[in-house]
Parts: sequence; structure tokens; C-alpha cells
Amino acid sequence: MNDPVVVRQIERPSANLIADLQRYGVSTLHEAQGRRGLLASYMRPIYAGALIAGPAITVLVAPGDNLMIHVAVEVCRPGDVLLVAITSPCTDGYFGELLATSLRARGVAGLVIDAGCRDVRALTEMRFPVWSRAISAQGTVKATLGSVNVPVVCAGALVRAGDLIVADDDGVVVVKQDEVAAVTQAAEQRVRKEEDTRVRLARGELGLDIYGLRQKLSDLGLKSSS
Amino acid sequence: MNDPVVVRQIERPSANLIADLQRYGVSTLHEAQGRRGLLASYMRPIYAGALIAGPAITVLVAPGDNLMIHVAVEVCRPGDVLLVAITSPCTDGYFGELLATSLRARGVAGLVIDAGCRDVRALTEMRFPVWSRAISAQGTVKATLGSVNVPVVCAGALVRAGDLIVADDDGVVVVKQDEVAAVTQAAEQRVRKEEDTRVRLARGELGLDIYGLRQKLSDLGLKSSS
Amino acid sequence: MNDPVVVRQIERPSANLIADLQRYGVSTLHEAQGRRGLLASYMRPIYAGALIAGPAITVLVAPGDNLMIHVAVEVCRPGDVLLVAITSPCTDGYFGELLATSLRARGVAGLVIDAGCRDVRALTEMRFPVWSRAISAQGTVKATLGSVNVPVVCAGALVRAGDLIVADDDGVVVVKQDEVAAVTQAAEQRVRKEEDTRVRLARGELGLDIYGLRQKLSDLGLKSSS
Amino acid sequence: MNDPVVVRQIERPSANLIADLQRYGVSTLHEAQGRRGLLASYMRPIYAGALIAGPAITVLVAPGDNLMIHVAVEVCRPGDVLLVAITSPCTDGYFGELLATSLRARGVAGLVIDAGCRDVRALTEMRFPVWSRAISAQGTVKATLGSVNVPVVCAGALVRAGDLIVADDDGVVVVKQDEVAAVTQAAEQRVRKEEDTRVRLARGELGLDIYGLRQKLSDLGLKSSS
Amino acid sequence: MNDPVVVRQIERPSANLIADLQRYGVSTLHEAQGRRGLLASYMRPIYAGALIAGPAITVLVAPGDNLMIHVAVEVCRPGDVLLVAITSPCTDGYFGELLATSLRARGVAGLVIDAGCRDVRALTEMRFPVWSRAISAQGTVKATLGSVNVPVVCAGALVRAGDLIVADDDGVVVVKQDEVAAVTQAAEQRVRKEEDTRVRLARGELGLDIYGLRQKLSDLGLKSSS
Amino acid sequence: MNDPVVVRQIERPSANLIADLQRYGVSTLHEAQGRRGLLASYMRPIYAGALIAGPAITVLVAPGDNLMIHVAVEVCRPGDVLLVAITSPCTDGYFGELLATSLRARGVAGLVIDAGCRDVRALTEMRFPVWSRAISAQGTVKATLGSVNVPVVCAGALVRAGDLIVADDDGVVVVKQDEVAAVTQAAEQRVRKEEDTRVRLARGELGLDIYGLRQKLSDLGLKSSS
Repeated sequence: MNDPVVVRQIERPSANLIADLQRYGVSTLHEAQGRRGLLASYMRPIYAGALIAGPAITVLVAPGDNLMIHVAVEVCRPGDVLLVAITSPCTDGYFGELLATSLRARGVAGLVIDAGCRDVRALTEMRFPVWSRAISAQGTVKATLGSVNVPVVCAGALVRAGDLIVADDDGVVVVKQDEVAAVTQAAEQRVRKEEDTRVRLARGELGLDIYGLRQKLSDLGLKSSS
Repeated sequence: MNDPVVVRQIERPSANLIADLQRYGVSTLHEAQGRRGLLASYMRPIYAGALIAGPAITVLVAPGDNLMIHVAVEVCRPGDVLLVAITSPCTDGYFGELLATSLRARGVAGLVIDAGCRDVRALTEMRFPVWSRAISAQGTVKATLGSVNVPVVCAGALVRAGDLIVADDDGVVVVKQDEVAAVTQAAEQRVRKEEDTRVRLARGELGLDIYGLRQKLSDLGLKSSS
Repeated sequence: MNDPVVVRQIERPSANLIADLQRYGVSTLHEAQGRRGLLASYMRPIYAGALIAGPAITVLVAPGDNLMIHVAVEVCRPGDVLLVAITSPCTDGYFGELLATSLRARGVAGLVIDAGCRDVRALTEMRFPVWSRAISAQGTVKATLGSVNVPVVCAGALVRAGDLIVADDDGVVVVKQDEVAAVTQAAEQRVRKEEDTRVRLARGELGLDIYGLRQKLSDLGLKSSS
Repeated sequence: MNDPVVVRQIERPSANLIADLQRYGVSTLHEAQGRRGLLASYMRPIYAGALIAGPAITVLVAPGDNLMIHVAVEVCRPGDVLLVAITSPCTDGYFGELLATSLRARGVAGLVIDAGCRDVRALTEMRFPVWSRAISAQGTVKATLGSVNVPVVCAGALVRAGDLIVADDDGVVVVKQDEVAAVTQAAEQRVRKEEDTRVRLARGELGLDIYGLRQKLSDLGLKSSS
Repeated sequence: MNDPVVVRQIERPSANLIADLQRYGVSTLHEAQGRRGLLASYMRPIYAGALIAGPAITVLVAPGDNLMIHVAVEVCRPGDVLLVAITSPCTDGYFGELLATSLRARGVAGLVIDAGCRDVRALTEMRFPVWSRAISAQGTVKATLGSVNVPVVCAGALVRAGDLIVADDDGVVVVKQDEVAAVTQAAEQRVRKEEDTRVRLARGELGLDIYGLRQKLSDLGLKSSS
Repeated sequence: MNDPVVVRQIERPSANLIADLQRYGVSTLHEAQGRRGLLASYMRPIYAGALIAGPAITVLVAPGDNLMIHVAVEVCRPGDVLLVAITSPCTDGYFGELLATSLRARGVAGLVIDAGCRDVRALTEMRFPVWSRAISAQGTVKATLGSVNVPVVCAGALVRAGDLIVADDDGVVVVKQDEVAAVTQAAEQRVRKEEDTRVRLARGELGLDIYGLRQKLSDLGLKSSS
């Protein structure tokens, strides 16, 4: 029922769709799609300022075993994001400079891993972005099969191969492949509205007025005292 | 007994008192006031090097709900620090670029929140300092009342509106409003004494001698072996 | 059976051995010695880019009490690394600018502490590197004896006085004193082999081929689907 | 894209299939289906010895808000298991004696909630079983919509309405609805095989021999020393 | 400003008031007083079924140091609850069988400690109830002053000497001394209302109807699908 | 340097020494040996009331891999305690009913594991005691070598094969093999002294007087206020 498998051919959103989507950050996209698809907040970038967007190559690994990451490399295409889920919690350093070199050679945009990574100084110098649960020098073995490009739960979010992964300083979000266009549109609308709000707030107007909250507060019974 | 309320008028320490106090860092002030008033060490700045001091506008919010932060903005004056406590643990991103824009327009010095914040790249570029428990893109709703400027427990410390909040790379400390002058004086004494100690230590003198610890060690029965 | 004691004379590896070893990072050395001796991944540097290697002066302290760190300073020699273990979990700020000044005056390379430190801005400006479990302004007392240069368990790793401590952005590893030469040699071999692998990976060769994993995957029964 | 919705009609496995499956415990079923579908180990029963199996009614709630649990009650049928997922981490007490009374009146078998519950003494006396992340007296509001019977990620596992939930002292596992028969069969085979193994182990035979591990250990190069 | 002090005379609620209040559990009282005063959910009883209510004798201790608990014993009267707060997180076993014997001799109802306790088997056999953050055999020293009967923050809640502490299987709540009568009254009203609701729910009525939620759901825009 | 190895012959304390030691609980022994050798407080028994004492068979395992536990069974003798350390944090269920059956057949007293166990209901019914970090149905593989009867760090404590492990409701402590007699003697002295103290405390005498703390409090400058 659960035979390990590598799915080699996956659907990816078109380059145009990806280019459109990647103008927006994680928080905007998460809002734009109705607050779904956010990975847990323990997923942090190894250096500040990184920003990626690309289709997920999903990998399911066993604790302390990075065999399937090596398998997944072969399946990656330029612009992909490697996303590694795990069968039980582990902080080991599954990924370091050598795997980053290999992924870079294939044009992979970055790594998202619900476990640890290492060689973070070298990765930072290479500007190969990684979002991980931990940083750990602890190496892994290559003994146990897992799967590539099956649906996985990574840091609490369901990800299917080819879904778009966007990651920045706020964290990591997944956008379903068939919703990329709609989410992009919603994000654009949100950004425009926020730009207007930003100008008004910068001028000193209050959110209470802009968002029309005063009536709600009154209805809820908020009292003031001086 | 616990009706949500907004207290609009609060006492604040004088500008002179604040100016005097803010020459000292969190660790010094925490020592100077007898090791009270430190928020839990999980409260971390979103970027290194930030340093603020100002009177607290306190906000008590429900999990996943930032309604009361919007209410609190209106109460803030230039130099204030917005301090957000929560009724139960939550890591959601209550605060981002728009609220920071609004607070900056009102001259607020920074935010301390026992929950999450987002848009950290924009906040960093704006140099709007935030100390938070988490970074998370997860948004919040505006549905539940809380209170503004009532006494709160934030990250384990009791804070009353108008108490001074000081925050830097070491964390966040609260100084009671009626103790600001005394704490400033104690901090100044401590800094002077430490300056002398620093010079002696830099010269190679030992803390064992400067602090007179050798007798104590002997009394306690410490043995040496070679 | 457990009288507190300060061991004043310890064996240290020769300067040449240390110089040879410190060309390698934590992840490489951890691999080179068979994946032993890594401290827990919660031990993080207070600033990025620090790198130290030196013999351990071990200190065992009580929670909230830094008396024995002062005792240990006197025992340190240039190039040593002060390593502080604790009898039960504590995040207090045992160590700050003054102790760093004192250690620097004695030529100590850095601090590794399974507890908290403070004054991190000053420590960063001094470029005095610290790996710690927490950052906390909470000060400590000087009331309870512990030991210096006895074997300790620090963040899950056994450390004896004079063992080599190496720390960088990936964490902290301990190399047993009598294994320094052998580990250096193994690290050198590993680095050479990795350099070759890096070139091949950068060219686009796959780890699957370089590491000869295809047969193993086939033996394990991995299936492919398109 | 993510409008809150209540799906009122769901498919459930037949009573016979459920009856067959529920003869096996969580660990056995997790193994039988290839080690998929286990909820995180922080999900613990409020009292020892409880054991349930039934189709999931899934609920997605906001932090601190149990509105949708009330909505879900109406959709439950006898034998169902209410499974509550959350949009971000929260330990509040979403569920207590009154909701348990309501669920019991509808014949619901138990509750699985990735948050907190309360009234645990009353729940224990009622023998209404709950698996939760926390026990907390902190109440919740009824302000924010969520969904019922949409696919959710609960404590790291993907659950669809009508999937079978099995929970005991080892934790909680989900079995996909269309795999119930196959998993039952695999569980039965596993149990039979284990029964045989148990008898041999009880007699003093070794797992090394029963599982044929000696050759593998030899191949891997394990050394012995006396 | 923060000289350690023992306050020997405190106000306590009358025996009648306490007797009235203690008919209600923690969850009910927390609700009755507007969801204030709950200690963090990590505070757990060492055995199930314990239930206490009594005025707080507050103790503020240093990490790893139980000196002030011994000081506090002398101040306790029959029916009091000893409540121990800590200046920074610690899991040491501050309290065991001997201190329990001493407290029992003075008629103390139980202990609430934001740290660890030990001898839990003996405490369980004595039926001396303890709510703690941890169980740990690690002993403490008697070296550092703290205070008795000053206001403290314990597990996130502000407690003043003489405030009522109620603890059961759901956790620990503090009721302000001058609100005991009002909270008791509110609790009684709540219990009566819940009793009616329980009967209706047991009969099969739905919370949706009893609480009048259908209109709200409709207003919020909840959709149904079959 | 770190070749996996099974050490088959180990020294054990004599049966008489073990019998003498096991009259004391974990907290007493931890005190008696100068507060060394305690495992971290996250190590909890799967059921209350268990109590074991026996020489350690140490096992070092990889995350998610219980191969070496099977190897260790063969080395166990009646009365031994199997103690499992791990190379990096993992909560998987390494151990269940079958392994317990095998260990019981060999007369093993119990298991201490710095990871997870499963089948806890069956283990409880068998009264096979386990102290573990977690309970998890997640199974493990049998792919990676480790070692048996080498020194390990388990839950923060150094353990050598043949050291005595004592575990009860307060946790787990290790007593060095060559100190068993001395620790037993110290424990006996402590128990006698405590028995006397218990009688005096039960009579209402105060620890302040029995331990002679009043002078110390006065010297430290404790103030009283009424």
C-alpha cells in the first residue's frame, strides 16, 4: 500500500505563472489564498533576505537517512524547489555543501527541509537558500527507501509535487498548482489595496477608521475609561 | 469583573527621566533594579542592534486576534512602546508592515509582543524594531475584545501602562514607572563600578581577586589538585 | 565521592596539532571521527562566522550560579576554550562583557556554555565568540561550588579537560585529546575526497552515480513511475 | 478559494469493515499500512486504557475559537470520531463536559484534537475518551468560521472525512477509507506472525535468529570484543 | 528596591468564602471571573483526582535553591496553599517528602510550584497534592534569599499573598482575594446554567440551537455542501 | 576510531551489592552520590509505581533504527537493565511488546531509552517497566550498526556498561560500578538522618530550626515585615 516510489514526471505550473506569482511574499500569498498552506513557524531560513518560488519536488525520508534526497536530485529541473518531509521528527543535518553544489548544477532554486542542514557558512557564501527546522552537523546514512514526488505533509502542510513553494524571511507557503493563477490575482488585489492603506496609515489615519472597526467595537461593548 | 476596557489616559515618566534611563542596556537595568522585570528569554529581536526605551502601552489580546492592537494605536504617543500580552500561547503573525507604518506615523518606538510578527524583511528595512516570540506569516482575525492599558503579564513579567520598557539584543525589561529615577541612579553606579572592573580585568587581574572570592571558596571547602 | 575540585594542571594537545586540526570545520571533523562528540544542535553562536579550536577548560556549574567560571579563568591559558556544563537545565546569563574581557586578557579563544549569556552586542563588537543555549539578561549568583577540569557532559557530549573543542556556524564538536592527530588525518582525507566530488557534482554528475547508489536502490526495491 | 464550508454528506466505511479493523491497535495498524498516517506523538489520551475506532468527522478551527466544533456535532452519526485540526498552534481548552455530553447523545466514539481540552475529571468519569495536545482550562470564543469535513492536516497527518481514526494508549492513526479492508488484512497477517514470534521469544529464542539478522550484522562489519 | 523580605501577616478570605468557592472546579472559576488568572497549562498534578482551594502563601525562589520554601513554612496556616514562583526557568526538584511532612503538620492544603518536585510516590501515598512543571530528583541548595508573600508571577499568572488558589485536574487558577464572593456567585450562576444545558444536550438538542448560533453562522457566510 | 562494536563480557556489581543498593530510591541515591548521574527529567515511566535496579547493558543506536537493541538482547543476563542511548534526538517507538517478551525471557529487569517506546498497554499489563522520552507507534528499521556496552551519554548522563541503573517514579539515576558500596552506605546514612528529621517535622518542628537556617538568613540580611 505504501511501496516506496519515485514519480519521475510531474506537472509544473508554466514559467509565466511562476514569474507572476513570485512577485509576492509569503505573508501576502498566505492571505491571498485564504490562509492555507503555511508551513510551521519553526521553519527558518539559514540567512536573511533569501526569497524563492518554484515547483516542489517532494521527498519523503526516514529519520537520519538522506538516501532519497540523492534520488530526488535526478528528478529536479531548473527552477524547482526541493522539499523534504520526514516520517518522524529529526534534527540531523541531511543536507550540506555537496548536495547544494549538485542542486545548483541542476538549477534548483533552494531547499525546504523539515529536519536539519549543515555547512551553513558555505551555503550562505554560495547563496544557496535553505529553510530548515534545525542546523546540525550530525550526518545521515543512506540505508532506507522513501518516496519522491508523492504527496507529503511537511511541517504541517500538505504538499503535492508541482505545487508552488514560496519562501522568504517570514517562512514557507505552498500554493496548489491549479490555484496559482487565482492566487496571483488575489495577491495582486491585496497588494494594491494594502498600498493604498499604507499611504493613508503613513499619513496618520487610523486602522480603526480605515477598516471601519469603531462600530464593531461599540457593538461588542468595549468600554473606555480615562 | 473583567470587562474589556480601553484606558485612554495614562501617566508617563517625564522625557528627561526616559532620556536618562535609556543610556543603559537591558542587562544593566535588570541588575540595577534587583533582577526583577525581565521578560522570558524567548523574546528575541527580529534584527540585531535595535535598542529602544519608552513607556508601555499595554494590550491584552486573544489568540489569533489582533483587534485590540488597532484599538491601541490610537492611544499611542510619540516615544511609546506598544507591548502586547496574550491570554494563551499563540505564534500567529499579529503584526506586520501596515501596523508598523501606522505606529511609525504616531512616533511609536517599537513593539514587544508575546506572540508572532510577520513582514520581517520590510520591518527590518524600515528599521521598525520588534521583539517577539515567533516569526509567522499566519494572519489574525479582528473578532474578540481585549483591553488596552490594563496591567498584563507579558512573557512572564507584570507590566502596567506607563512602565518603562527597555529592549535590546539581550531581551526586554520593564522598569516600574515610580522607580525610573532610582533605577537610573543604580544603573549609573553599576556602570561606573563595572568600568573600573573592566579596566582591571583587561589588565589581567582576576575576578577572584577583584570580587574577593578566594576566602569564600576556601570557606566552602573547594579543593585543588594538580 | 563528588567533592568539588579544581584541577589546575591539564594536558593539552601540542600547538602544531591544534593548528593542523583547526583547518577543518565542525561537520567535517564530526564525520572524520565517526560521528561522535557533537554537542546538541540547540548550541548556537551569538554571531555568524565565528570559528574557534582549542583545548577545553571544563567547568561544572549549578543552575543560576557562575562562581566556578571565575575560578576557571585563573586556570586558562592562551588558546584555551572555556566550556561550561550545568547540573540541571538553566537559561540564565552566566557570562557577559566583563568575563569576556577577563578571558580575552588571558588569550582564551571563546566560550561554549550549556546555559545563557548576555551583553551579546558588546561580545559581538569585541568579536569574542560564544556558543550558548540561550541569550538572557538574567544574572547569576556566586554561592555554590562546582568543579573545574573534571569530565563533564555538556549539551549531551562527554568532554574531558584538554580535549579539543571546535565550534563554527554548524555547532560545536569535541575531539578527544589522544585522537587529534588521527582525526586530523581523517579530516584531510575526507576534504580531499569531497573536493573531487564537488567538482564532479558542479559539472552535473549525480550523487547516485558518484556514490554508486543505483544498485542499492534496485536491491532495496525502489520503483519508478512516470 | 478557501471559503469555509460544511460538507454534510460523507462516505463512511461499512460497519463490518470498522468492526474488523478495530480489533487491532494503533501500532499494529501503523505498521500494517506501511508506517503512514500516524499523528504526532504529542497527542496523548486523557486517561489510560481508552481505545476507539471510527470514521472521522473533520473540523478545522481557528486558534482560541471552537465555533466549528458546535457546527460539526450536527453532522456526527453514531460511531463517528470527531477530529479537530487547527490553523496554528494553540493549547486552549476547546472541549469539555458539555460538548462531550452532546457528542455522547449522538453516539460519537471519542475526540481527537490538536489543541487542548478541559473538564478532564468529568470526561474521565463519563469515560468519554479524548486524545489531545494539552489539558487547559482556558476557554474559547465562537467568532470565526472554519470548515467541517474538508481534508485537514491534524498533528502532522492528512485526514479526510470518513477516513478511519483509531486511537489507543500508543497514540492516533488514520487509515484511508479505501484501504480499510487491505489494512485489516495486513494487520491480521502481522498479528499472526507476531503471535508466533512472541511464543518463540518467550521461550528464549533470540530476535537475531528469528529475524535472520546475524548475516546482516556480519556483512555490515560489526565486531565483537570480550 | 527589591530587598528580599518575608511578609508575615497577610489577609486571607474568610473560611466561609473559601468553603463556598471550593465547590467549583478550575475551568468553571476561570470562566466565572472572565477568563483571567489561569496558570500555564504545563502545570500538572502529580496524581489524578486532587482538588484544593486555599489562600496563597507566595514564595519567590532562585533557580536551584529552595531556601525560601523553608522560610515560608513558618508563615503557613491550616488551609493555606504554598505557591512557589521562580526568577528564571528551572526543573529541579525543590520539594519532596520531608517538606510535605512539614507542610502537612501545619495543615497546608497543597503545593503549586513553577519548577520541579520529587519523591512523587511518597507524596502520592501521603495524598499531599502538588502541581508542578516537572518531576525531577535533582536537589537544590539553600544559599540565596528570595521573598515570601510579595506579589509574584507564577507560570504566567500574577498572584498576591492571600489570593485564593484553586487547583484540580484541569490546572491551577488564582482568584483575587477581593473578588472571591463575586466569582463564587458567578460560578454558581454558570453551573446552574450549564446544568440546564447539560440536560438538553444529553437529550439530543444541539448547541447550535441552545446557544443560538445558526443566525451567526449564516451572517458570517458559512456554506453547506452535501 | 569509532568502529561499531559489541562488548560481550562486562563486569557487574555483585548480587549482594545490588540488593543492598536497591532499597533506596532515585532521589536518595542521587543525593547520596553528590548529585551526579541523574538522567534528564524528560525520562518518564510508562506506568506509576515501577522500581528497578540493575547493571546497565548500554546500547548506542541511530535515529529510527533499533538493530542494535536486538544485538544487545543476547548479551543480557538476569537482573540487567537495558539502557539505550541515541546519536541524535528521536521519538520513534524502538521498543514494544515483542522485545519486552524477549527481555523478560532473559530475566531483564527493565528498559531505559532516550527515545520512544510503544505497545504501552501490553507493557503495562506485563508489568515490564520502561522509562522513555516519548510514547510513539512509529516503528524503526534495522539497517545501521551501533555499539553495545561502550560508554554512552544517555539523556545527559554518562553510563558505562555494568554501572548500576536505578529507576522509579522520580526518574533514572546511574551509580558508577566502583562506587556502589560507598553510595549504598551514604544512602543508608541519609535515610536514617531523614527518618529522624521526618519525625521532628511531623511533630511540627520547623526546617528552619532543624537545619539551623535562622542564623544564615540573618547573615544574608533577610528582612521581615508584618
